[in-house]
Amino acid sequence: MSPKESVCSRSYFLVVMVFVHVYIVNVIALLLYVYYTGEGDTGTAAGPASAPPHRATPAAATATTTTGTAPAPPSPSLPKHHNLSPLGRLQRLEGIKVGHVQRLDLLPNKVHYMKTLSMKPLLFEVPSFLSEEECKLIIHLAKLKGLQESQIMPSDLQHEAIDEMDISKEEIFNLLDYNQDGQLQMKEVLTLLRFGDSTWITPETVQEIYTGLKADPDGNGLLSLEEFKQLNTNAFQTYLRQHGVEKSELVRNSKNAWLYQGEGAHQILRTLRHRVIKLTRLPPEIVEHSEPLQVVKYEQGGHYHAHHDSGPIYAETSCFHTKLVSNVSSALETSCRYVTVLFYLNTVSGGGETAFPVADNRTYDELFLIQNDTDLRDTRKNCDRANLRVKPVQGTALFWYNYLSDGEGWVGEQDEYSLHGGCVVTQGNKWIANNWINIDPDVQRQVKFQQAISKYTNGEAPAKWAIDNIYQDLHVEL
Amino acid sequence: MSPKESVCSRSYFLVVMVFVHVYIVNVIALLLYVYYTGEGDTGTAAGPASAPPHRATPAAATATTTTGTAPAPPSPSLPKHHNLSPLGRLQRLEGIKVGHVQRLDLLPNKVHYMKTLSMKPLLFEVPSFLSEEECKLIIHLAKLKGLQESQIMPSDLQHEAIDEMDISKEEIFNLLDYNQDGQLQMKEVLTLLRFGDSTWITPETVQEIYTGLKADPDGNGLLSLEEFKQLNTNAFQTYLRQHGVEKSELVRNSKNAWLYQGEGAHQILRTLRHRVIKLTRLPPEIVEHSEPLQVVKYEQGGHYHAHHDSGPIYAETSCFHTKLVSNVSSALETSCRYVTVLFYLNTVSGGGETAFPVADNRTYDELFLIQNDTDLRDTRKNCDRANLRVKPVQGTALFWYNYLSDGEGWVGEQDEYSLHGGCVVTQGNKWIANNWINIDPDVQRQVKFQQAISKYTNGEAPAKWAIDNIYQDLHVEL
Repeated sequence: MSPKESVCSRSYFLVVMVFVHVYIVNVIALLLYVYYTGEGDTGTAAGPASAPPHRATPAAATATTTTGTAPAPPSPSLPKHHNLSPLGRLQRLEGIKVGHVQRLDLLPNKVHYMKTLSMKPLLFEVPSFLSEEECKLIIHLAKLKGLQESQIMPSDLQHEAIDEMDISKEEIFNLLDYNQDGQLQMKEVLTLLRFGDSTWITPETVQEIYTGLKADPDGNGLLSLEEFKQLNTNAFQTYLRQHGVEKSELVRNSKNAWLYQGEGAHQILRTLRHRVIKLTRLPPEIVEHSEPLQVVKYEQGGHYHAHHDSGPIYAETSCFHTKLVSNVSSALETSCRYVTVLFYLNTVSGGGETAFPVADNRTYDELFLIQNDTDLRDTRKNCDRANLRVKPVQGTALFWYNYLSDGEGWVGEQDEYSLHGGCVVTQGNKWIANNWINIDPDVQRQVKFQQAISKYTNGEAPAKWAIDNIYQDLHVEL
Repeated sequence: MSPKESVCSRSYFLVVMVFVHVYIVNVIALLLYVYYTGEGDTGTAAGPASAPPHRATPAAATATTTTGTAPAPPSPSLPKHHNLSPLGRLQRLEGIKVGHVQRLDLLPNKVHYMKTLSMKPLLFEVPSFLSEEECKLIIHLAKLKGLQESQIMPSDLQHEAIDEMDISKEEIFNLLDYNQDGQLQMKEVLTLLRFGDSTWITPETVQEIYTGLKADPDGNGLLSLEEFKQLNTNAFQTYLRQHGVEKSELVRNSKNAWLYQGEGAHQILRTLRHRVIKLTRLPPEIVEHSEPLQVVKYEQGGHYHAHHDSGPIYAETSCFHTKLVSNVSSALETSCRYVTVLFYLNTVSGGGETAFPVADNRTYDELFLIQNDTDLRDTRKNCDRANLRVKPVQGTALFWYNYLSDGEGWVGEQDEYSLHGGCVVTQGNKWIANNWINIDPDVQRQVKFQQAISKYTNGEAPAKWAIDNIYQDLHVEL
């Protein structure tokens, strides 16, 4: 056979045709790829399977973020390569400036407007997010489920003695003595007690405890090192437990119910979840596996002193929602609520504003919050001094970030300015609901959690860490 | 000839080989495309021609921005469809929070760190952005070009009488009388004079003018409507022109030179421009056709009172750089400097800090700036009261946005907090350089400008509005 004949063979023709077809398919694939990736960010659902579900934010794409604050070059953290994770980068809405208004298309037949209320925290207000009927129905569902006290009275708590810590009294004293004047001022003591029990501690309470425990024999309201040494670490807690407190003396005075929002839930709750996904532009799979809806009722006299919905993140901190999946045990745990969406279910007759004491402050200073006899976190006394107060209007949604961005499209440090509370209700009842979106600042743990969740929701038996099991025990802390 | 023979022909073989080669090239192109577009935003220059130069920011993709500040639904402005413009969406760096540090890869063999100094304005600091040699060379080039006074003395200015306005004295009086107490306080008068001549007006100057013009016969420092009516609109300007002022009494006391940075410019200036493009991540074609480099020398005693590098934008405002191309004539014009990049070319022995009087303030109030005898804009007197002061260190670059985002990836409103000035130099000289990136808040005008520029740079004779012609006459205003 001559070489020329082999070129003419049927098999050769076949090879050529395969090449031609592969080429055409390839060109079509290229065109499709260019079309769908160049199209902006609307309608990714229709794109081919290869299109990433969440697009990368270009800002800071070449920058590696560090958490250092020193002007000298810090040791930068390793890039986390979020864009390689199946969850992509998280969208974060732009606030632009206080008072800025953006149009939202949340519903086919209604236009919503979202107004920026503060930049620190990044906080928005959306009037008429819920209709009157929706608000009423949610209240109704909560009543059917049954409301429980948001906080158990200290006297009913199991007494667990706090172990004596491994550090000496002198060391604790020095840590508390911010201004290093050798004495503990009232506000230095209050900073410590903030982490204590469910009782709200005021300077008056501390004075009362001092007297009860004979902790301050010279009666000058200051604790010297000598006086401090006489105190048992558990003395304050024990004292409070033995002397009953009024509900109004608690950190929080309200009742609440948790409403399941997952598949099969009441239509109104599913609708609400979908609307929240549209509002926050966060990955639906994350929102779907966040906490259930919390409905809260404040009766006349009810309040909630200013607090953070979720705590600061240290290297060893783990999140409630991912700790079982990621198999980490840590003394430091928090709820990792990246976003809070708060709905006002009724218009309150008197009081009950949501206060942000330090919103848009130039600086945040924990000790500044507690000035001479004026604790800015106290929403029974000092709501009028808050930088920002929002009046409850039925149907309005408030929406803010409890964490900053890490600069790479994921959850970063806690936003301390997100401190907020519920002012005392002076007339009538106040009904609100909270949706929290839980995201682990450790992207790998969140990915692991999502994978485990999707595995179990695909038919297998619910695991012990399924989200609603996790949160059922949390009605005290939340 | 049988069909089989034609399949075997040499020309058929040629066609097949062309197909095969095109196929291979196509696959390589596809791989390159996927590689460069999936890689984040580093090194777009190396990507194939079809890759989009600027990627869309996903935030606010479904929201339409309005500038209204009322809580009630405002009339939203029409969507501008920036993503349809050839310039794409503008990148805006993330500040995260004050003190946040990001790693930058600006040079192949050097890592830079960028620290967030304030969020309002969005302001960054990059130490060692320029090397010592580069700083010295830029100063040298400016000296070769020759430095001119930044501001002409009022006595040398051509006297152009301001036309009597179409509104009555009463109306002007009412406009100035912010607190509507029927009298003009010193600070109310100062707000007016700010827009006046190149002389810096202090309360003492005003008192002097009052005395000189016998404008305030009762001598109480307040102008009543009756007293105001007696004044000629040009009286203040005329008075100042006739009574000579010292250089230290000017708004600005410095010398400057403009250095061309376009194609064919000195290598150091080209390098600087490219580095600024990498730093700001703005479209190269916009940066390339922005203002030339301004080198400024402050001698001992030199200063620049706090000001905005670019003015507010109203519906009728036009930009210096686009007004000729877009053929608009307007009484309101500004430089539309979206970004300022300020380089410290030497370390100053004493004084000369860059002050941002209201950086990160909770609110901005023009009248608040001028309190009883304390004008916060005065950088000869009140630099120590500024919220933020940056010490000049050789090689450091400061970088901030003079405008907010419009929420759709383009230039929005002026950021009033970007107010800044140069504190008085107490010892030695201070050398800085400024790069401004000019972008028209009207995206269509900017597009038109870019198109016209590229047309003329492609061989045709330079037009009368070519960028360096525009700026050559601006050494007074800039």
